Amino acid sequence: MKNRIVTISRQFGSGGRTIGKTVAQQLGIPCYDAELIQAIAQKSGFTESYIRDAGEYTPGSFLSSAFSDRSFGPTNEDQLWVIQYDIISKLAQEGSCVIVGRCADFILRDKADCLRVFVHADMVFRAERIVREYGEREAIAQQRLRDKDKRRAAYYRFYTDMKWGDALNYSVTLNSGELGLDRCAKIIQELY
Amino acid sequence: MKNRIVTISRQFGSGGRTIGKTVAQQLGIPCYDAELIQAIAQKSGFTESYIRDAGEYTPGSFLSSAFSDRSFGPTNEDQLWVIQYDIISKLAQEGSCVIVGRCADFILRDKADCLRVFVHADMVFRAERIVREYGEREAIAQQRLRDKDKRRAAYYRFYTDMKWGDALNYSVTLNSGELGLDRCAKIIQELY
Repeated sequence: MKNRIVTISRQFGSGGRTIGKTVAQQLGIPCYDAELIQAIAQKSGFTESYIRDAGEYTPGSFLSSAFSDRSFGPTNEDQLWVIQYDIISKLAQEGSCVIVGRCADFILRDKADCLRVFVHADMVFRAERIVREYGEREAIAQQRLRDKDKRRAAYYRFYTDMKWGDALNYSVTLNSGELGLDRCAKIIQELY
Repeated sequence: MKNRIVTISRQFGSGGRTIGKTVAQQLGIPCYDAELIQAIAQKSGFTESYIRDAGEYTPGSFLSSAFSDRSFGPTNEDQLWVIQYDIISKLAQEGSCVIVGRCADFILRDKADCLRVFVHADMVFRAERIVREYGEREAIAQQRLRDKDKRRAAYYRFYTDMKWGDALNYSVTLNSGELGLDRCAKIIQELY
């Protein structure tokens, strides 16, 4: 039998990661996020902070490095994509778990029994949250959110050819600002 | 205090209307759908069947009538839009209820306390369902679904300037094919 996996895609600041950790804890299964980045880092030789950032950059965008020109072969981002594709596939084989971000919903679409979740919230809720939780500067919080949203959407589109945040791609999408983080976690648990 | 309204947008054949009726019954509040069409019909003088179809056609599309040319002033569809805008606003003032379709989520966005739901499912699930429930011909079921989806999306976009089925527009979106109609109804009730 295929393992049961919860994949959580989320807008930056929506609390998707917190919800994922809560769900995993209550279901008694592991949650991969920072741990996943570390695993990728160990395998690839890239530094952890490089991977944290590059994992959301689309090859060839002005934000990526000079090594992102595909005329020289696979870019750093492409290599990272292959490595994280591998790691996520293996994690899903090993046992049931929650995986936050990194296009896991797409990577596991034919490999595991996935509950595919997308978490979002409005700007005001997310801006307040990243100022409070991550110590972001209030003056630029909304700009940060817009940048992050754009980057995640572009990354998802580039590697999956699907639209990030399109309801049709998910089992369930939740507005965490409206419903609250605890209620979102509760619904995911119930659906699991 | 504002009334609490559940608005349900749905892909054709996803069971959104059935879910809406179940939720309304269990919450002991009215569900407006066919009733809504009748109310519109009585007020406008258009026939019921005309309204059922025209309510999903976008003015100026090749599907709409010769009277849909805006150079002659508001189209039939525009008049219908104004009437249904009115009726939906009034229904929401009268008391808590479930409203299926007709851009109610958009119409009530600043007028009522809405739980905005979108229900969808994959082609296979929906095709089987419309053959079974509505007696559609199996050979053309998927074509029917594609036509209906396109039409609803265009109608929604035209009058709301938002993207139909974009997770960001809803409190919760549910894949009824994956989760089952009863579970969808249960979640909506819990969130209400």
